[in-house]
Amino acid sequence: MERSFEAELSKIKNALLMMASMGERNVNMAMRALVERDDSLAETVESEDTQIDALEVQINNMAIEYLARQAPVAIDLRFIITVVKICSDLERVGDQAVKIARRARELNKEPLLKPCIDIPRMCQMALEMLRLSLDAFVSHKIELIAEIENRDDMVDKINRQLYRELTSYMIETPQTITRCLNLMAVSRHLERIADHANNIAKKVYFLYEGKDISHQKTVPGTS
Amino acid sequence: MERSFEAELSKIKNALLMMASMGERNVNMAMRALVERDDSLAETVESEDTQIDALEVQINNMAIEYLARQAPVAIDLRFIITVVKICSDLERVGDQAVKIARRARELNKEPLLKPCIDIPRMCQMALEMLRLSLDAFVSHKIELIAEIENRDDMVDKINRQLYRELTSYMIETPQTITRCLNLMAVSRHLERIADHANNIAKKVYFLYEGKDISHQKTVPGTS
Repeated sequence: MERSFEAELSKIKNALLMMASMGERNVNMAMRALVERDDSLAETVESEDTQIDALEVQINNMAIEYLARQAPVAIDLRFIITVVKICSDLERVGDQAVKIARRARELNKEPLLKPCIDIPRMCQMALEMLRLSLDAFVSHKIELIAEIENRDDMVDKINRQLYRELTSYMIETPQTITRCLNLMAVSRHLERIADHANNIAKKVYFLYEGKDISHQKTVPGTS
Repeated sequence: MERSFEAELSKIKNALLMMASMGERNVNMAMRALVERDDSLAETVESEDTQIDALEVQINNMAIEYLARQAPVAIDLRFIITVVKICSDLERVGDQAVKIARRARELNKEPLLKPCIDIPRMCQMALEMLRLSLDAFVSHKIELIAEIENRDDMVDKINRQLYRELTSYMIETPQTITRCLNLMAVSRHLERIADHANNIAKKVYFLYEGKDISHQKTVPGTS
């Protein structure tokens, strides 16, 4: 009994990690569609998102079956509730990849505005945050949470800076407006991926510490 | 035993309805901050959002306690999982209200661009969808779900139309760019509120029909 219970938990955990890695791959692919100006990559992102969606449904069903069969309490119960919530963040990461891919296709129709530097950097930061948040979850590493929060602040800062820069650019050169709007949207989608990673980190804190800090600015004991 | 179990479920349901009505009130207040150009309303939205956040934490804790104590199965188990998920959508509706309030404050710094007609209309449509989705949840009205989906398509359409109109406006009159960007953002936030209502509707379908349609375009048997 004990063993089947652990095997079931481990299966759920693996499915969640798989979902995270599919999300990461799609975000990377959407970024390549933008940087390499390759529409076919953008199309792949859009079609592969259905796999992420399907995995969300599957993980939700696994979680409900587990709850019904094992009636877990304490940490195991919180673990499953955390899985259900993380799952919903990961599904939204996949959605952001699709939105980036669509903006990439719009941007690829027009001449390059300027070499992308900040945007791929933001993308790598957001994805690193996502990896850290999943690592905190799987390996019970509470100490990573403050680090994720710091990086989220940095991503927010780059996003705000890009918004200001692109606004000035639009005012000076109105013929770049549609391109600037698309780049702003990409930057905003990356900022939201970082937000999802930060949400996951806060849920992991709740899982292991039993306290909800979703609406606190700073992780207790880390500032 | 039976009675305490029902009382607990009913308490959770009422807390969720209270959260929805606080979200609706804040969205309305943010819209008034914009239409009436009243910064003090925008400030109230920002400060009252903490109450919505606190309610989310409270509902999550109630749900976890309920699961631990009652170990529900079948419909009652799905009910609680649905509550946890709806709760997270409602918290995000509150966040969108805050974001609209912030954009209203930015817009109030500059002269009025043009009388707002589409935006308050979108707002009322999104809030009506939210009410319908909660009604479908509380009163087990599956037939409302297709109606919510139709309205979501209408809100998406208005959002896309506003995006195009405001883009043209920016190109013709570059001095309106910052105002147009703020109005675009408000329109996008309203579209996301409608999305949350649509998400809730799909979760309600899952609750009562036991099937997950989150990633299907059309509700089975309604098109």
